[in-house]
Amino acid sequence: MALLPKSITKVIEMFESLPGVGPKTAVRLAFYLLRLPQERLTRFGTVVGKIKEDTVICAVCFNVADRDPCDICSDSRRDQSLLCVVEQAIDVGAMEAAGNYKGLYHILGGVLDPLNNVGPDEIRLDELIDRLAKGKFRELLIATNPSMEGEATALYIKKQIERRMDQVKTLENLVIPRLAHGLPIGADIEFSDAITLSRAIEGRRKI
Amino acid sequence: MALLPKSITKVIEMFESLPGVGPKTAVRLAFYLLRLPQERLTRFGTVVGKIKEDTVICAVCFNVADRDPCDICSDSRRDQSLLCVVEQAIDVGAMEAAGNYKGLYHILGGVLDPLNNVGPDEIRLDELIDRLAKGKFRELLIATNPSMEGEATALYIKKQIERRMDQVKTLENLVIPRLAHGLPIGADIEFSDAITLSRAIEGRRKI
Repeated sequence: MALLPKSITKVIEMFESLPGVGPKTAVRLAFYLLRLPQERLTRFGTVVGKIKEDTVICAVCFNVADRDPCDICSDSRRDQSLLCVVEQAIDVGAMEAAGNYKGLYHILGGVLDPLNNVGPDEIRLDELIDRLAKGKFRELLIATNPSMEGEATALYIKKQIERRMDQVKTLENLVIPRLAHGLPIGADIEFSDAITLSRAIEGRRKI
Repeated sequence: MALLPKSITKVIEMFESLPGVGPKTAVRLAFYLLRLPQERLTRFGTVVGKIKEDTVICAVCFNVADRDPCDICSDSRRDQSLLCVVEQAIDVGAMEAAGNYKGLYHILGGVLDPLNNVGPDEIRLDELIDRLAKGKFRELLIATNPSMEGEATALYIKKQIERRMDQVKTLENLVIPRLAHGLPIGADIEFSDAITLSRAIEGRRKI
């Protein structure tokens, strides 16, 4: 936009660099900030600049956390025999919000994505298998996203573990389920895509 | 979200307070920031905190600007006999982007909104009439939003000026148009709302 003060243009550019924020939203946000008292702006700036400051990566599960090991890993009330592997730290929040998983987590830090040069060494796969081998887990819930990359990663993880099952005793009886696919709650069968519906039929359950 | 580090929660709360940013977007943005290098985070924080620092309000038109009077008010190539009144500083950018208005601006700083206790004294209406009375304007383009409040404000401004037309010589021949209403470009007549369409019919023009 022409003729805007430089300090506003800078903020607009900053907002535009965020995912999901287009040029118009960026302008709207910047003008919103202009109306805030200086005290709130300063706080906003400080808080953003310090987001990483008091944050550590848990050395056990690789979640972002206040302390290492994180609150989940050090919570003895959680089921220590269940492990759930997710793509990103942000997915832990969604799983916790679901409310019925009470085990531990392992954050992969990505998915296999050969087109973007992400191979098995770029995600925390060895760390996962090490952890499984050294621990006493009975179940590994694979909670990667239902995307092409997520599905491929899930399959790859399963195969890597199965290859080691003969040699490593702790992996022997490990059950490796995947999150169920099907109709999301509130969806319309009429409008659901064919793949989702075929998965919902495949996975049909007794009522 | 449970168990998130405090520094992340603070950023999420901050983003949630912005207009149009819901809880899920706020979480996504915070986790995006976590992946940025510290240097960019610091810059983000500084720039937001300083958005007002090098910004002044132009004493002539009340636009936010680098200097006072602003670049528009001090640009002698612009038509000094045209004045356009807009609700907010952000609207100036949209008008400038349209590209065919070459006059000056007056930022009202709001619209009349009795339900929210915004009366004529809360917006820069006296300043507008003063400026018109002291200047040599031949046209005042009213560019308030096509909302109920915007329309009411447009009418109110017109009446206030007309009441003074007899006493104040400079207001005598002032023309007071309003932005045209009608179908937005690219719209579908089939899906356009009745009021817009009725305005488009009312305002029909020879081709």
